[in-house]
Amino acid sequence: MTRIACAEFAPVVGDLDGNRARVLDWIERARTSGVDIAVLPELASSGYVFADAAEARAVAMRADDPVLASWARAAGDTAVVVGFCELGDDRDGGGALYNSAAVLDGGVVRAVYRKTHLWDAEKLVFRPGSCPPPVVSVAGCRIGLAICYDLEFPELVRSLALRGAEVITAPVNWPLVARPEGERPPEVVQAMAAARTNRVFVAACDRWGTERGQRWTRGSVVIDEAGWIVAGGAVPGGPGRLVVADIDPARARDKAVSERNDVLLDRRPELYPGW
Amino acid sequence: MTRIACAEFAPVVGDLDGNRARVLDWIERARTSGVDIAVLPELASSGYVFADAAEARAVAMRADDPVLASWARAAGDTAVVVGFCELGDDRDGGGALYNSAAVLDGGVVRAVYRKTHLWDAEKLVFRPGSCPPPVVSVAGCRIGLAICYDLEFPELVRSLALRGAEVITAPVNWPLVARPEGERPPEVVQAMAAARTNRVFVAACDRWGTERGQRWTRGSVVIDEAGWIVAGGAVPGGPGRLVVADIDPARARDKAVSERNDVLLDRRPELYPGW
Repeated sequence: MTRIACAEFAPVVGDLDGNRARVLDWIERARTSGVDIAVLPELASSGYVFADAAEARAVAMRADDPVLASWARAAGDTAVVVGFCELGDDRDGGGALYNSAAVLDGGVVRAVYRKTHLWDAEKLVFRPGSCPPPVVSVAGCRIGLAICYDLEFPELVRSLALRGAEVITAPVNWPLVARPEGERPPEVVQAMAAARTNRVFVAACDRWGTERGQRWTRGSVVIDEAGWIVAGGAVPGGPGRLVVADIDPARARDKAVSERNDVLLDRRPELYPGW
Repeated sequence: MTRIACAEFAPVVGDLDGNRARVLDWIERARTSGVDIAVLPELASSGYVFADAAEARAVAMRADDPVLASWARAAGDTAVVVGFCELGDDRDGGGALYNSAAVLDGGVVRAVYRKTHLWDAEKLVFRPGSCPPPVVSVAGCRIGLAICYDLEFPELVRSLALRGAEVITAPVNWPLVARPEGERPPEVVQAMAAARTNRVFVAACDRWGTERGQRWTRGSVVIDEAGWIVAGGAVPGGPGRLVVADIDPARARDKAVSERNDVLLDRRPELYPGW
């Protein structure tokens, strides 16, 4: 079994030092809870609601920043997927900003992914990524990355599944939206469908609190390969929490849904015009 | 507003004459309820659990069968999407069988769609369709067709949305599957996600009853473009019911989900390898 956890805490916008310490604290909580794979929120290093691009730039880090390396070392045997505000290198024309996620494993930064689908005002601050999200082997399973709004594109999740991802690890910051009484957040419904559609696990780590008037959903969730929630789900208020589930990622390798059906092999790409 | 309805009844396997009368009865109920678009179950003409292909062949009809034309005339101003067991023409090498849906409108058969993704033992009886599902203008809106398991392929629903479908009309026969206490049928969760992902309405017409030991879900549902159920949902037991909702299909033409986001324009097809 693989112990996976979402470390749902509240980064503080612009407080780089404080957020660095918060990330270390939650990595430590995950490590001491025997977590194999910990997912932290989107933009955990920086907070989300920037006043402008300059404010984001002031708290951005390069992918080779010693802070990321120090988190990787602190995580020990726990693999970590954490969102951060990335400063591109000089090849980006002086350093564009990206809404990124790093995979920390074995004491090093194993991969960095730049969010493909930017949400609303993010478009005023960040450049969208230009590489597909990676699939990375950590803790004996293959994780595929997505960041927040990315999860709402079934194309992206399907692509990860086709490339062998068993668990979709997704740092998110889900803005709280109105929903009918008794319903789950719509992003959770979409994540449940994404899991069942592809027979993959999904671990989405949200945040809590209110940031410059923006309320967050606090909807961190672990979903199994049949699309059912096995840990977490939206709850009101704070404080931080570790949403933990023990899963068997190998179950995601079996794509059969009946004696004669397989969710990936049954696709008929020639019959989806416009794709 | 457009009045859409799912006519959830119980076809009887092999009882072609009886099913013809049942279809006429439910078309009449829809027409007299002022329904603009009625969706009937998958394989409404024939029932579903065939003992073998010969039994299906005995109750198959060609797309130009007078029965379909008579249903179209009976429907009057109500457009109808109805599943039927189709006998192909001689170009199919002597007449293959298809799990099809017909669009009846204006007194004629406007379109016939052959199911793209066959479920389980259907593969022993039917040939899969070789044409993409159509988008057809009826009752002032654009409907896109899907049949049952098709709905679980986000590729197909996205393709319909990209081609202008505002309402996905889906004849289904959802086999009852175990689900956690308090959860909706998984097919309904996927349909909700499909709606929100594409900002389209979904009207899925299921059936009720038990057929040769196969229990059905009775999960007919109308979902709005935000992904919320506006009518129907799974209920135990029979009898037949008309699940009715008044919807504004024009809302599906607006794909914006924030000031700077559009669920179709935000796609980045170059970044979904394996598609």
